[in-house]
Amino acid sequence: MEWKASDIAALVQGTVEGDPNVTVTEPSKIEEGKPGTITFLANPKYESHLYRSQASIVLVSRDFIPERPLPQTLIRVDQVYQALQKLLEVYQHQATPSSGINASAHIHDSCRIDPSAIVGPGCILEEGVEIGANAVVHGQVYLGPHVIIGSGATIYPGVRVYHHCRIGKRCIIHSNAVIGSDGFGFVPDDQGNYQKIQQIGNVVLEDDVEIGSNTVIDRATLGSTRIGAGCKLDNLIQVAHNVEIGPRTVIAAQTGIAGSTKIGANCQIGGQVGIVGHIRIADGVRIQAQSGVAASIEEPGSAWYGSPAIAYRDYLKSYALFRKLPDLFRRLLSLEKELQSTEELSDQ
Amino acid sequence: MEWKASDIAALVQGTVEGDPNVTVTEPSKIEEGKPGTITFLANPKYESHLYRSQASIVLVSRDFIPERPLPQTLIRVDQVYQALQKLLEVYQHQATPSSGINASAHIHDSCRIDPSAIVGPGCILEEGVEIGANAVVHGQVYLGPHVIIGSGATIYPGVRVYHHCRIGKRCIIHSNAVIGSDGFGFVPDDQGNYQKIQQIGNVVLEDDVEIGSNTVIDRATLGSTRIGAGCKLDNLIQVAHNVEIGPRTVIAAQTGIAGSTKIGANCQIGGQVGIVGHIRIADGVRIQAQSGVAASIEEPGSAWYGSPAIAYRDYLKSYALFRKLPDLFRRLLSLEKELQSTEELSDQ
Amino acid sequence: MEWKASDIAALVQGTVEGDPNVTVTEPSKIEEGKPGTITFLANPKYESHLYRSQASIVLVSRDFIPERPLPQTLIRVDQVYQALQKLLEVYQHQATPSSGINASAHIHDSCRIDPSAIVGPGCILEEGVEIGANAVVHGQVYLGPHVIIGSGATIYPGVRVYHHCRIGKRCIIHSNAVIGSDGFGFVPDDQGNYQKIQQIGNVVLEDDVEIGSNTVIDRATLGSTRIGAGCKLDNLIQVAHNVEIGPRTVIAAQTGIAGSTKIGANCQIGGQVGIVGHIRIADGVRIQAQSGVAASIEEPGSAWYGSPAIAYRDYLKSYALFRKLPDLFRRLLSLEKELQSTEELSDQ
Repeated sequence: MEWKASDIAALVQGTVEGDPNVTVTEPSKIEEGKPGTITFLANPKYESHLYRSQASIVLVSRDFIPERPLPQTLIRVDQVYQALQKLLEVYQHQATPSSGINASAHIHDSCRIDPSAIVGPGCILEEGVEIGANAVVHGQVYLGPHVIIGSGATIYPGVRVYHHCRIGKRCIIHSNAVIGSDGFGFVPDDQGNYQKIQQIGNVVLEDDVEIGSNTVIDRATLGSTRIGAGCKLDNLIQVAHNVEIGPRTVIAAQTGIAGSTKIGANCQIGGQVGIVGHIRIADGVRIQAQSGVAASIEEPGSAWYGSPAIAYRDYLKSYALFRKLPDLFRRLLSLEKELQSTEELSDQ
Repeated sequence: MEWKASDIAALVQGTVEGDPNVTVTEPSKIEEGKPGTITFLANPKYESHLYRSQASIVLVSRDFIPERPLPQTLIRVDQVYQALQKLLEVYQHQATPSSGINASAHIHDSCRIDPSAIVGPGCILEEGVEIGANAVVHGQVYLGPHVIIGSGATIYPGVRVYHHCRIGKRCIIHSNAVIGSDGFGFVPDDQGNYQKIQQIGNVVLEDDVEIGSNTVIDRATLGSTRIGAGCKLDNLIQVAHNVEIGPRTVIAAQTGIAGSTKIGANCQIGGQVGIVGHIRIADGVRIQAQSGVAASIEEPGSAWYGSPAIAYRDYLKSYALFRKLPDLFRRLLSLEKELQSTEELSDQ
Repeated sequence: MEWKASDIAALVQGTVEGDPNVTVTEPSKIEEGKPGTITFLANPKYESHLYRSQASIVLVSRDFIPERPLPQTLIRVDQVYQALQKLLEVYQHQATPSSGINASAHIHDSCRIDPSAIVGPGCILEEGVEIGANAVVHGQVYLGPHVIIGSGATIYPGVRVYHHCRIGKRCIIHSNAVIGSDGFGFVPDDQGNYQKIQQIGNVVLEDDVEIGSNTVIDRATLGSTRIGAGCKLDNLIQVAHNVEIGPRTVIAAQTGIAGSTKIGANCQIGGQVGIVGHIRIADGVRIQAQSGVAASIEEPGSAWYGSPAIAYRDYLKSYALFRKLPDLFRRLLSLEKELQSTEELSDQ
């Protein structure tokens, strides 16, 4: 799809300086821009690249004064970064499947699908599924019995949502994520064989949650595993049964949270963190990547590191000395020798 | 689906106390129960919740004597917990796809599918696949050439099983798990380019194994990667080629086991553990979450922690002192100073 | 499928010794070989197994002299290992889906698919997808708008490739891997709600890359996330947006690489490693499993370990002493006591 400079300017409420009829097909980095692309200058530090860029259009701020004449068409806007996001959203939207319900989708008669929603090829929607207005369910998705997808949500190909789970408004779930598979619960019988504890709760994603590719959120044993409004979870994360996460907490890739743990609002959790089950973490807590949290954290806004995790600064201090352990042992040994010779001396 | 109290009592061999015609549609937690749900009192500690619960039916033990009159219908049973599990199994079963082989499944002529088995929409069953009695293969599943699915197994949507793998009786495999993809084996050629070593073994899951969502078990180079009877593997686990795991071992989420390692029976392995290749781990060994096992463990029933993992108690002791390293360095420094002044003193 | 000894000999340019008409259906390990299988003797150390093996055919080197007469048919070759790989490649090839484009695939009119390529059942190929000669796209695969699949590539069931990503020649992508999902980028607004930063770059896999099951490679914010030619990535790996990896680097399972980091050529990265964002790692660097790399590594070929990672040997030394910390504290305490009594003595 081709865009004209004048159309882009209208979209971002900007002013064209140069040829309003020049067209572009995609965005580019300022260092790499080639003809037919649109780039942007938000950070003055990159200005030098601008004079070499082959991009056809550049988004710049209203008060930008180039050092020398520029061949590109400029579009001047109030806030370069926000204009760019606006533009990219529209560009991104082109990747959305066409429209309506694909004839190859398997949809139970009892499903209620808003007429404005999209359901792609090969989807399975079991009994009682409900899909809200303007939701986009890409192809190859599985929605188990009585799943509810909120309005404006986007579900990417290969996502599986087990029965009775509820996905909030404007949620985004990336490919091959699994929502609502059985929690990991077994009891050994008299012979030491593990008997399965039925997991009959569900998962609730509140509004505006984003879930990364191949992330897994298990259903509660009873009740709900709950992800608070506005949470953002990266790829390959494990959330066990009955976990509850407060609103606007962000979690980086490959982190795992064990069963029944409750995490506060506005936390920032790094990648590959492990959090044991049945603990509480206060609001605004920050946990460094690869840490292992083994006990409740009660102080809001505190920072943690290590496995088991301790206060962030304490870990850094201890680890700096961990590196000096060979030196420390040498000094200890030399002290022991000295002391011995001192004693021998005083014994004489 | 609605259940009457009298029907539930018949199912769990219990006695109704109250209205036998009251109906419920789903289970609930005792703290959250609302009208139209059934809850249970197994642990006396939760008794106080019972007097506030809005649930319509409560499972209680035969000898339970309430402190004051209860408005709910009670069902008295010998073992509350076991009755609950029985009930939940039936409830859970409702989420099973209807029956028979869906017309949209792609099934090779040579497949042998028991008439009692279920195959959901969009499945692919390649040449020579066999499916046992009462097995449930949900939609969107891929079963490669000559895969065998044991009787009573449940395969959730999006599972991929590569060619020649064998899944035992009553196994459960959750969504998007991959069984039998190529082991990670390469040899550098003269130019330093990695040439693929063909992986032509398979994966064998013995009976009663459960595999979590997005877990991957690679096929053997030759022979079989083998998961013993009754093993339970959580989500997002990596099992490399030629690994063998003894019966009834449980492994928590995000753990990885490198190639050709042999793990005993009845082990308990925490989440995010890493185990190197080509080692042996004895029966009943317990490994703490996030540990890294770098050498064989020969003592049955021993407990391990750390990376590289050492005896569990030793790690805790050393880590407690790791936290005191700043103090230790201060004290060492002060000793050095004192000793020096002592020497200077004796030199005088 | 049955193979005759004479046919196999022709394939691997070997010489038959024994019955040229004996047939086999599959390969086997020398320790486990049963009738109807072919095995091999590459390592003299395994020779004793040969005399007990029930395999019908054995690949041996031209100069091999058995200690006693063997009942099996031998095929003598110049290089046993290479002959075996040749054989296994042909054997493996049998697992490829039949041919052509399956009628149930959903293919946009604008796609360009080479006549020699295979597209399996239930695939979705969106607008503008291109597939090269002899590429095999198994069933249940999703290829978003304008995705390009190079000639000779193999895409296993359940792989999802988001729009505009490019897969090089002879690449192999295993089941349920996700290529090109959105990078993890958000900015908090005035109310502390995270606003999504549109991710409009793509992913480029250069030629001869292999990607493991359930691995995720996120698309760049702008520009490309790039995996160099000949790289091999194991299962369940996370590669964040804008990462670039040089040619022939191998990465073991469950490792995660944060955004914008640049990794050199010929590196060897162990399993469960975490690498922070925005750093550079030199060529040929080796990183031990479970390490956490927190800063750029500038020395080519260096080895690293620990979290945060330090020089490999230094970590081993410090960790050995970490284990002795209880002993060290005891000795420190005894020194303090001795020194005190020494002082008291000198005070007298």
